[in-house]
Amino acid sequence: MTFDVFGTVVDWRRSIAREIEAFASRHGFDIDSNAFALAWRARYQPAMERVRSGDVDFVKLDVLHRSNLDDVLDEFGMDGVGEADRVDLNLAWHRLDPWPDVVEGLGRLKARFILATLSNGNVALMVNMSKRVGLPWDVILGAEVARYYKPQPEAYRLTADFLGLAPERCMMVAAHEDDLRAAAACGFRTAYVHRPTEYDDGGDKAMPEAGAFDAAAADFLGLARLLGV
Amino acid sequence: MTFDVFGTVVDWRRSIAREIEAFASRHGFDIDSNAFALAWRARYQPAMERVRSGDVDFVKLDVLHRSNLDDVLDEFGMDGVGEADRVDLNLAWHRLDPWPDVVEGLGRLKARFILATLSNGNVALMVNMSKRVGLPWDVILGAEVARYYKPQPEAYRLTADFLGLAPERCMMVAAHEDDLRAAAACGFRTAYVHRPTEYDDGGDKAMPEAGAFDAAAADFLGLARLLGV
Repeated sequence: MTFDVFGTVVDWRRSIAREIEAFASRHGFDIDSNAFALAWRARYQPAMERVRSGDVDFVKLDVLHRSNLDDVLDEFGMDGVGEADRVDLNLAWHRLDPWPDVVEGLGRLKARFILATLSNGNVALMVNMSKRVGLPWDVILGAEVARYYKPQPEAYRLTADFLGLAPERCMMVAAHEDDLRAAAACGFRTAYVHRPTEYDDGGDKAMPEAGAFDAAAADFLGLARLLGV
Repeated sequence: MTFDVFGTVVDWRRSIAREIEAFASRHGFDIDSNAFALAWRARYQPAMERVRSGDVDFVKLDVLHRSNLDDVLDEFGMDGVGEADRVDLNLAWHRLDPWPDVVEGLGRLKARFILATLSNGNVALMVNMSKRVGLPWDVILGAEVARYYKPQPEAYRLTADFLGLAPERCMMVAAHEDDLRAAAACGFRTAYVHRPTEYDDGGDKAMPEAGAFDAAAADFLGLARLLGV
C-alpha cells in the first residue's frame, strides 16, 4: 500500500496554521494564519511544475517550501523575519499532525500489508514527521527517492520497482482523485479516503462516484475494515 | 543511526545455509550448504566492484545475487536447477534471520534515535526481510537509493543528505571495520558491534583496538546501554 501523505495522512492546513499563529503572536504580526497556510500551499504545485517541466533540476521539497515561504512572507508583509526563523518555520512541514484515525488505521493495515509513503515530500520531512507522531511505515518512498514529482508516471512506476512489485500488486491510497487516476494509469489499484476538511473547515467536498476507484472509505479505519484487517 | 545489515543485523551465513540445506535435501543434492553460502557470498564484493569501477551501470543487489547464484549452482554441480527454483532461492536473501539481540536492541534505540539502514542490499530485500522478523526501521536507505555501493563515499554522504543531517550527526553501526572507516572518512561517527561467528562457527575474530571507533559493543543491547537507552 502506497500512501499520499499531505492531506491524506496529515492535516497540513491546520498544522501549518497553528505554527504560523504561534509565530505571529510571538512576534506581533496580525495575520490570518489559515490564509497564510493556504497561500503557502497554493505555491506548491507551481513550484513542482517547474521541476516536472524540466525548467529546473530536481530539488527536494524542503527547498521548494523554503523558496515559497520567502514569497509568502513578503506577501503577508512579514519580510523582516530573519534567517533562523525562516529555517525553523520551513520545518513546520516536518511537524504536521495526522488525522485522528491514522495511527490506529496504519497499525491495523501494517499487520497484513507493506506500508510505503508515496509522497512528494522529501525523505527527511517524512522521517521527522513520522517519528514525531508514530506513523509505522515499513519504508519511505516517493518523489525524492524516485527523483520525479507526482503525478509524473515515473514517480509511481519507480516506487513499485523499488518495492520489487508489479504495479498491479500496489494500491495507492489518497484523498485526491487526480493522484489516484495517475496511479491507476500506471497499473496501481486505488483506494480513495475522504478528507473533506483538508482545504476548509466547512467540509462539503463530494465523495467520488461509486466504482471510480477499487476502494473508497471515510477514513483509514474504514479502509482497514474494507480490506479485512 | 545508520546500520550495515548483512552480518551486523542478520546472520546471513546460517540463514542462507539453512535454505540451501532444505532445498538440497528436497531435490536430492548432496552438498555442503555452509560452503555454498560462503561461495555465494564470496562473489558479492567482486560483483559490486564491477559497478563501483564503472564497468557496468548500477543494478540492484537482487540482480547481482542472481547472477552469482547461477555461477555457484554451476560450481556445486547443480546446473539442472530450474528457473522458478532459482528465483525463489535468490529470495533467500529476503528471508535472513537477525542475531538474537537485534529486535530488542533496535526497539530500545528507536526510542531516542532515527534508525536507518545503510546497506548494499536493495530496498525490496530490506523491506521484505524486516517485515518478516519485525525490524523497526524508521527509513530504508542505502546503495539502491543512493545508487552507489559502499564503501564509495557517495553511499554515506547521500544517505546523510536524504536524512537532512550533517554527517557528524550520523553514527554508522557495523560489524566490519572497513565499513566504519569509510563512514568515518565522510564525517560519520562510528559504532562497532562484534559478530565473531559471521563467517565461521569458531568465532575467534578479534575486537578492534580500544579507541578505534566512537563506540564498541558486543551486541545491540550493549550498544543501547552505551548510548544510555
